[in-house]
Amino acid sequence: MFESAELGHTVDKESWKREVPPLREALLDAQYDLLQKAEFPVIILVSGVDGAGKGETVNVLNEWMDPRHIETHAVSDPTDEERERPAMWRYWRLLPPKGKIGIFFRSWYSTPISLALHKDAGNSELDQQLARINRFEKMLTDEGALILKFWLHLSKESQRRRLKTLEKDPATRWRVTERDWKNFKIYDRFRRTAEHALRRTDTTEAPWIIVEGADARYRYLAVGQAILQAVRSRLDSPRTCSASITVPPVTAGMDSLSVLNRLDLSLKLAKKEYEKELEKYQGTLNLLTRHKNFGRMSAVVVFEGFDAAGKGGAIRRITGALDARYYRVIPTAAPTEEERAQPYLWRFWRHIPRRGHLAIFDRSWYGRVLVERVEGLCSPADWTRAYGEINDFEEQMMRNRTLVLKFWLQIGKDEQLRRFREREQVSFKRFKITPEDWRNREKWDDYERAVCDMIDRTSTEQAPWTLVESDDKQFARIKVLKAICEKLEATL
Amino acid sequence: MFESAELGHTVDKESWKREVPPLREALLDAQYDLLQKAEFPVIILVSGVDGAGKGETVNVLNEWMDPRHIETHAVSDPTDEERERPAMWRYWRLLPPKGKIGIFFRSWYSTPISLALHKDAGNSELDQQLARINRFEKMLTDEGALILKFWLHLSKESQRRRLKTLEKDPATRWRVTERDWKNFKIYDRFRRTAEHALRRTDTTEAPWIIVEGADARYRYLAVGQAILQAVRSRLDSPRTCSASITVPPVTAGMDSLSVLNRLDLSLKLAKKEYEKELEKYQGTLNLLTRHKNFGRMSAVVVFEGFDAAGKGGAIRRITGALDARYYRVIPTAAPTEEERAQPYLWRFWRHIPRRGHLAIFDRSWYGRVLVERVEGLCSPADWTRAYGEINDFEEQMMRNRTLVLKFWLQIGKDEQLRRFREREQVSFKRFKITPEDWRNREKWDDYERAVCDMIDRTSTEQAPWTLVESDDKQFARIKVLKAICEKLEATL
Repeated sequence: MFESAELGHTVDKESWKREVPPLREALLDAQYDLLQKAEFPVIILVSGVDGAGKGETVNVLNEWMDPRHIETHAVSDPTDEERERPAMWRYWRLLPPKGKIGIFFRSWYSTPISLALHKDAGNSELDQQLARINRFEKMLTDEGALILKFWLHLSKESQRRRLKTLEKDPATRWRVTERDWKNFKIYDRFRRTAEHALRRTDTTEAPWIIVEGADARYRYLAVGQAILQAVRSRLDSPRTCSASITVPPVTAGMDSLSVLNRLDLSLKLAKKEYEKELEKYQGTLNLLTRHKNFGRMSAVVVFEGFDAAGKGGAIRRITGALDARYYRVIPTAAPTEEERAQPYLWRFWRHIPRRGHLAIFDRSWYGRVLVERVEGLCSPADWTRAYGEINDFEEQMMRNRTLVLKFWLQIGKDEQLRRFREREQVSFKRFKITPEDWRNREKWDDYERAVCDMIDRTSTEQAPWTLVESDDKQFARIKVLKAICEKLEATL
Repeated sequence: MFESAELGHTVDKESWKREVPPLREALLDAQYDLLQKAEFPVIILVSGVDGAGKGETVNVLNEWMDPRHIETHAVSDPTDEERERPAMWRYWRLLPPKGKIGIFFRSWYSTPISLALHKDAGNSELDQQLARINRFEKMLTDEGALILKFWLHLSKESQRRRLKTLEKDPATRWRVTERDWKNFKIYDRFRRTAEHALRRTDTTEAPWIIVEGADARYRYLAVGQAILQAVRSRLDSPRTCSASITVPPVTAGMDSLSVLNRLDLSLKLAKKEYEKELEKYQGTLNLLTRHKNFGRMSAVVVFEGFDAAGKGGAIRRITGALDARYYRVIPTAAPTEEERAQPYLWRFWRHIPRRGHLAIFDRSWYGRVLVERVEGLCSPADWTRAYGEINDFEEQMMRNRTLVLKFWLQIGKDEQLRRFREREQVSFKRFKITPEDWRNREKWDDYERAVCDMIDRTSTEQAPWTLVESDDKQFARIKVLKAICEKLEATL
């Protein structure tokens, strides 16, 4: 993998003087086109061997382009706010919006590689992490991002020479630390591990660009030209269709059996029993969230359901049992401008709770495979890939000890009609019913099909969907509360 | 101040049952009106004596209203990301957007009061902090926020009884901590300090609402009704004009003397000297930002100036000397949707750098007193109060060891014309010139007047404006670099 980067590439002064001015101009030009179109973000990773000039390269890129529209991130130790979230949270919050360039100096590759190197984590663990990175990058490119991954390489001998040279000059001596020499000693192991990591993550969507780092002029020109080429070609030939159009999943529909219509919507709970159970489960839930172990985890509760299925009411029965300081209800409305400039899941990542906290989502990331699918707000390629992305997202939360609980509140078509009419008549409920609700109702069957697909594809062992028979609100609320209590009890 | 809150207020069960349902309905109604109009945010502080039911009250408010549109914040120890910014940063990031309700359990009053109480900080320091709080709240209300500050009070005897009662019941025992009893011992001092703090911050814009906390029913009803009344009356009679219209400041203009036209725009630097100086000051700046003490501070550099005055070029000469990992250039464009739902300064607060980092603003919060004033984008009351708000903002940064450096790049009208024409002719500069630039040029005199006012009112001893003669770009760039180096040298 590094063969071509150990040949001793150099660029002479003459060529440098000739090449740089037009390159800079073209880069600036491309940067402004990118900014004006604001159709996709550019994500540049600068990784590589110590002493291969990563920092200098990043500085040169900032010098050549307009630094006002570049965000450079040197990710080091996570802050305490970051440590309480899934590992990728810190990168999500730094993703550049459409039209901008984000440069990551040290990136999501640093931790896996250094863990594999120093902690002697098995290769299988490294491979798992790399597979996750592949899925992450695939998601980003599917969302339109242009990802450029640079690996600045040095042969062992070059690295030794480079460190020595830096050390000799008083102006650069500070840049060589003890750590660098320590790393030098394990050069061979590092090279092997890095090569393995690069091979596993060298994908069509986001291939590695390996650049020999020994000669500064060569390094800068190589990186600069690669960026120019990639950005320019993407600007000039926008992707007309997603590379991988998958056949949309088809739900059986051959007979009338489905996970939804097998639900017994006649299930009811009498008022007296409801009140007894409500008190019981709210009390239990309250105690559970005050359990000392709850401070070491967090929870995400998702509510989906047809209009008027009783999501709001169920949520209030949960929050009624909780201390307001430790939960947050997130009503999922249309994305804001800042959210629209980011990958689809970005607006949910920003609400992942800290330890000891709950986030309750009134509608959620499942909008992608429900309303957006049915209303044609995104392409079939977008919503078909969303299942996998969502599973990854939830898996990352669970790996971070964030429980994921998902409820589908199912009501019958008649019951919905009754509730719509009721809402129209009761003054303080009138805001709850809009023409859109009536429109959605007309597509009931399409929605049911989408719901069945969603359940099939995203009900995982760790984060299964709980289907809630909701024609009777009291029954539904207790079923939800009970499910949350049981899951918490099993986890704490 | 607490007299009325030690009378033993109670509400009997009958009245409670009668009062609560209509109150809840009216509160919900008000909340939805607030949400739909989205004209102002509601900020509710719940403070008071330990055991007075602050937490329970917050929970009841969440129960009575729709928790999906309430954000409850229990501010405790600052995170490390918060500790690196000015003290109020953590509150700025939690401010509710227009249309929403933000409840602060513990608020910006907690630290000053507890410092005065436990660290025996002098009263003068407390008073200083309270004065800052007054200015902060005044800014929020001027920006349209409705602030409701509740103080839940208990007499000494009530507090003792309350803690005892809580301790007796196994279900509530956990809520009484050793700290509570410790605090009880200093009740008298706490009462005095709190009373002092409340008096100083009991303003027309954000008065304190003191509620006796001993009887739960009374407490909830009192708080609920106060909120209803305040929100409803604000919804029904929107402020037609700001309460305090100040006479806009008039700049002399009687003779032709001004800080701007006294500048000698003929100042020049020859190319050779420029290159020498550039290398020298870039080198110095680089060393300074790598000084070990720089890691304990941060810096904010602000650029303002007429169109084509050379802000971008000056910025690039600074970033050229810096490590891209530690700076960020923030181009100030039109505010995003999320930013528009917040007080004016919010979008700048979010970019305050961490320790060891620089933030360079290409245009800034001064837009309020420049373009927004001249173009009539805000009312005279808005921009006149902005001077004080900006001074407060910068003072807070400096108190946090964030250097504030401000540059006004001044060019002559002829030179601007020359540069505009040049931009129109050079292909890769064309994006830099828009019809708006030509329009702004027509209002040159109005802008000059605004600039003079800005300099007079916001040039402070710690954060003075540096006026830069910029008809010659080389001269301007060196003057800027030199000023930054000198300031850093003096500070480190």
